[in-house]
Amino acid sequence: MTDTRPLYLHPDRLLPADPAVRAIARTLYQSVADLPIVSPHGHTDPSWFAGNAHFGNATDLLLVPDHYVFRMLYSQGVPMEALGVRNPDADPREAWRLFAQRYHLFRGTPSRMWLDWVFAEAFGIDVRLDAGTADHYFDSITQTLATDAFRPRALFERYNIEVIATTESPLDTLEHHAAIRASGWRGKVVTAYRPDPVVDPDFDGFHDNLATFSDLTGQDCLSWDGYLAAHRQRRAFFASMGATSTDHGHPTALTADLPRTEAEALFRRVSTGAADPADAELFRAQMLTEMAAMSVDDGLVMQIHPGAFRNHNAAVHQRFGRDKGADIPTRTEYVRALKPLLDRFGNDDTLSIILFTLDESVYARELAPLAGHYPCLKLGPAWWFHDSPEGMRRFRRMTTETAGFYNTVGFNDDTRAFLSIPARHDVARRIDCGFLAELVTEHRIEDWEAAELAQDLSYNLAKRAYRL
Amino acid sequence: MTDTRPLYLHPDRLLPADPAVRAIARTLYQSVADLPIVSPHGHTDPSWFAGNAHFGNATDLLLVPDHYVFRMLYSQGVPMEALGVRNPDADPREAWRLFAQRYHLFRGTPSRMWLDWVFAEAFGIDVRLDAGTADHYFDSITQTLATDAFRPRALFERYNIEVIATTESPLDTLEHHAAIRASGWRGKVVTAYRPDPVVDPDFDGFHDNLATFSDLTGQDCLSWDGYLAAHRQRRAFFASMGATSTDHGHPTALTADLPRTEAEALFRRVSTGAADPADAELFRAQMLTEMAAMSVDDGLVMQIHPGAFRNHNAAVHQRFGRDKGADIPTRTEYVRALKPLLDRFGNDDTLSIILFTLDESVYARELAPLAGHYPCLKLGPAWWFHDSPEGMRRFRRMTTETAGFYNTVGFNDDTRAFLSIPARHDVARRIDCGFLAELVTEHRIEDWEAAELAQDLSYNLAKRAYRL
Amino acid sequence: MTDTRPLYLHPDRLLPADPAVRAIARTLYQSVADLPIVSPHGHTDPSWFAGNAHFGNATDLLLVPDHYVFRMLYSQGVPMEALGVRNPDADPREAWRLFAQRYHLFRGTPSRMWLDWVFAEAFGIDVRLDAGTADHYFDSITQTLATDAFRPRALFERYNIEVIATTESPLDTLEHHAAIRASGWRGKVVTAYRPDPVVDPDFDGFHDNLATFSDLTGQDCLSWDGYLAAHRQRRAFFASMGATSTDHGHPTALTADLPRTEAEALFRRVSTGAADPADAELFRAQMLTEMAAMSVDDGLVMQIHPGAFRNHNAAVHQRFGRDKGADIPTRTEYVRALKPLLDRFGNDDTLSIILFTLDESVYARELAPLAGHYPCLKLGPAWWFHDSPEGMRRFRRMTTETAGFYNTVGFNDDTRAFLSIPARHDVARRIDCGFLAELVTEHRIEDWEAAELAQDLSYNLAKRAYRL
Repeated sequence: MTDTRPLYLHPDRLLPADPAVRAIARTLYQSVADLPIVSPHGHTDPSWFAGNAHFGNATDLLLVPDHYVFRMLYSQGVPMEALGVRNPDADPREAWRLFAQRYHLFRGTPSRMWLDWVFAEAFGIDVRLDAGTADHYFDSITQTLATDAFRPRALFERYNIEVIATTESPLDTLEHHAAIRASGWRGKVVTAYRPDPVVDPDFDGFHDNLATFSDLTGQDCLSWDGYLAAHRQRRAFFASMGATSTDHGHPTALTADLPRTEAEALFRRVSTGAADPADAELFRAQMLTEMAAMSVDDGLVMQIHPGAFRNHNAAVHQRFGRDKGADIPTRTEYVRALKPLLDRFGNDDTLSIILFTLDESVYARELAPLAGHYPCLKLGPAWWFHDSPEGMRRFRRMTTETAGFYNTVGFNDDTRAFLSIPARHDVARRIDCGFLAELVTEHRIEDWEAAELAQDLSYNLAKRAYRL
Repeated sequence: MTDTRPLYLHPDRLLPADPAVRAIARTLYQSVADLPIVSPHGHTDPSWFAGNAHFGNATDLLLVPDHYVFRMLYSQGVPMEALGVRNPDADPREAWRLFAQRYHLFRGTPSRMWLDWVFAEAFGIDVRLDAGTADHYFDSITQTLATDAFRPRALFERYNIEVIATTESPLDTLEHHAAIRASGWRGKVVTAYRPDPVVDPDFDGFHDNLATFSDLTGQDCLSWDGYLAAHRQRRAFFASMGATSTDHGHPTALTADLPRTEAEALFRRVSTGAADPADAELFRAQMLTEMAAMSVDDGLVMQIHPGAFRNHNAAVHQRFGRDKGADIPTRTEYVRALKPLLDRFGNDDTLSIILFTLDESVYARELAPLAGHYPCLKLGPAWWFHDSPEGMRRFRRMTTETAGFYNTVGFNDDTRAFLSIPARHDVARRIDCGFLAELVTEHRIEDWEAAELAQDLSYNLAKRAYRL
Repeated sequence: MTDTRPLYLHPDRLLPADPAVRAIARTLYQSVADLPIVSPHGHTDPSWFAGNAHFGNATDLLLVPDHYVFRMLYSQGVPMEALGVRNPDADPREAWRLFAQRYHLFRGTPSRMWLDWVFAEAFGIDVRLDAGTADHYFDSITQTLATDAFRPRALFERYNIEVIATTESPLDTLEHHAAIRASGWRGKVVTAYRPDPVVDPDFDGFHDNLATFSDLTGQDCLSWDGYLAAHRQRRAFFASMGATSTDHGHPTALTADLPRTEAEALFRRVSTGAADPADAELFRAQMLTEMAAMSVDDGLVMQIHPGAFRNHNAAVHQRFGRDKGADIPTRTEYVRALKPLLDRFGNDDTLSIILFTLDESVYARELAPLAGHYPCLKLGPAWWFHDSPEGMRRFRRMTTETAGFYNTVGFNDDTRAFLSIPARHDVARRIDCGFLAELVTEHRIEDWEAAELAQDLSYNLAKRAYRL
């Protein structure tokens, strides 16, 4: 193979340019680079660890499931069908070639950083991906995936994952989690309770889901009391399978605290299909407060992830389904939205709520002041589109001065791309160490404080915040 | 005392990391470090300077009155009662220990920079605050406060304060200001006219305040004409006690310019308690324009500070009262909101209005374009949560290119924490000099221009903008 | 002339401060500094190139037409009349002196960078502008403008402009463009189709414009079909005069896709003067979708420039007319606003829409995710108030990680100040090379990738995106 460019991960990548700052950042990074990975929020598939089957080919593993990758290719005119998205007839090698030819599109994106890490570090490839090396990549990755060292449990151990949380619907039987436990394998894979399918009246199949919820729990989930009891029951079951948290992906951060009779009447409209959009929004709002009440009782940490306009592209949604890269962030308000919940539970420090946002304009204006006051609130890391070097820097610069570091919760990878997990944690550790090094160089903190903080941001805070 | 860490204020703290930039910044900073402090907007207590009594103990001086400090401790589960907030039974030494044990929570915050300055520079302490040094700090600060060198007037002189403005309600008798003047002491302490208690129908005690306003002025403050005349009278009195400015802390920036009959009818509803929330908002809006009209006549500079959701935490408000750290910024609109006032007075360059914001998204989008056009508008400095190194940098980066430096007004400390005043001005001077040094290094301005600007930003602009 | 300060454009201006980053940036910049200028969007006057007459004096060329300059002077109390704005009686030399005395107001602004470039590079002046050099400047510039080397075509060639687009109303006869073509001069000057005068019911003279539109096209522009046919006809004429794009300057980004009968009824209200403000907004929204439909047919690239509150200062608008520096940006929403258009055409990759914004809070939140998914969308460069060093850096930092570089379109100068065109492109190239150099130094891209990107951002992307 001639005319290829070397692929090389520079040991100082993502550390600040200034030599003095970089030297401090490097020392800090070296002190945390090998810490175990705590992954308290993500979307890996527990069946991987239960079945421990080989992953398929390069395209199946790295292209088809990664909406960061195919959204960019789609934006530049590549049909998703050609990439194999919802198209079993696509030739994976041809799909990989389409990707390889356009790898320059990812310059400056976090996908490029994560993928290069996977190529070089996980697969040991030493040439850059482009049209000329496409087949070499495809063959080499696909062959490596067939080895035992690349089965899910081996990778879990190889990357020193101390604990990983997956995310399941209340309707999930958690059979894969049960199988993992029964298998005797010592990897710690826990679930998290994500009730959107039975909480969001706009969720596909909501009414069928309520029926299933009844069947599964033996509760009458068309009555308000039965519905709440079913949640309590499933939460207890999830907790028994290791869950320490719940996750709520609402369009807005709205909360409500209705009198019981109003809540019951609202649920009647929602559960009978008589709800209008305002009812649906109010019901989601009320359910955040109900979930907070249950968290006060059962200790599950509550995660609120608002602000995505899901499935914005109607044609893509219809053809390819959910999660196909057409979720777009929207402006999100927290101060008035959270007040009903906070008026009821805001001063209860047994409750722990982790707030995320896709709207960076609220970091300094709303989230840091809220988290810097209310005992129950903490800030989740830079999320989704903002889980990137510049995005993480903005997060630290805009939240630290008001909320401090200790009202934040370390890093979440939030991904379904398994091999990107170590890559993402590595990026986060580098960026945080760079930020700390800047504070040291400007004499805003001492070097020994930065060293403590590096451990906290990379490991301790996530364990503590998620009660893991 | 063993195992203690040294406390040392590095002379280059807060200056940019790059050695070339830092060298320029250092030279600029040295040229302004010793300029007198002009403090045109703040909340110190004039009785300090009138009575010149000793401050109490460390907790009374540094912890209880500083909502930046106790909000952070509260967010991490420390009850405010235990810190002595609205609790005379709290043991100040125990409160100080709670604070000292958690001083790491402030890493990366401006409070940490200000407090370390106070500890090292004002009190000469040379070890860091932590659990082990808590008692040493408490005793040493408390003893020092008992000396004459730490009485209010001595500190005023020691820190080279040329002028300080306090903020009073129209209902205030200004007796402390009168006492200061009568005392023969030469420190310049002036008042500022903050009419919120008689302008905001939602202010606690608004109707009683109107009655007091009548008593104090001899005007019938339940009639629109009498009410306006009372304002004019009190403004004149405030001006006679040195006031050069007014201050308006509204929930939004809304202004209105109603026909006289409508304004009068609105005031009738407001003054008789028949106002709904929309009336209250409209009345505040109308009063900004009325205040502008009076400023055109009497020359008082007008400050508009909108955008805080006050007393967000209902339980904390009820138990501890106002100003307890639960004020949260909200999204704030200026372009449409200010138009009624600007349509009437915007081109009158005898009027001077200083705009502040808690919503940084308006810096480049709304405030800089408005101030870069309207003769009556200037921009106040980064305010409150944004009065911090990163906040100040964002302010300069996002306003300078459109509004220039000369539509800004220098620094305000806006504090009730007296000893933090020199610390805050020092931070502001360092950050501004760092920003100027970056412009010099990128050849965007010349070194001699930066030297002029450093003087302007540190001293001249505040004097000029506030007509001091 | 004594006591003057030298004017010198440092070769490293605007390059990052860090020496290692700067060295990389310098190399990148040198590789693109002399590339031809592609100016695909702007507001120069085609009569300049048609008539090739001398420009007038310094004030006429540099002060009166530049609202960046006179808005700043006006904000500091200089009457526009005194500067010669809409005042033929003003003495141009006196106007220039007013400007020169206040040139310090521009410190830190892009105007200062552009003007210094014009002074030093175009006019060869070697002393700084201030009160003492005002007359020297005025005389020297005015004399130089009288030379043949400073006639419009000579300047066009001297600054290596490969193509420039002007912007005309559908009612424009394009006679100047015809004259340029007929003249045999080889400079490429093309038009762009800006239909606001016949699309925006709130535009001054809208109804008269419809009548003229009918006269010009022979269509009945009071019927919906005739009106649309007239657009098609004028678009074809514009394309025949070189246009490759349309331009739409709406108050918001709202789009609509009404059924034909509703659209027709709406047009009836609008064209008969029966439209209320909501109708006007809906009509503009519908017309964006109609224009997109025509672009699918004729291939004209569509530019959407929303978010300015035009003529905010009522008194200035009344006295001086449009475009006098009182246009103020407003918060702008894209995600819901664009959905009707995108639902219809979003997946059609023959359509190309370039989005601009005055609201930087949407860069990372809305625009980059939209452009990083939809095949028809690309992002225009930092625009208007944000066409500045800090503004461009924010644009790159906030869009690249999600949209990549290849969903952006290179630089637009968007100016009516002819001599600032090379100055603005130079600033853009420097800032982009600085950004790329930072990515190289942090090992986020390779040096050879940065070299390719520098060419793309400076030249290739603009040609490709605008189909020039």
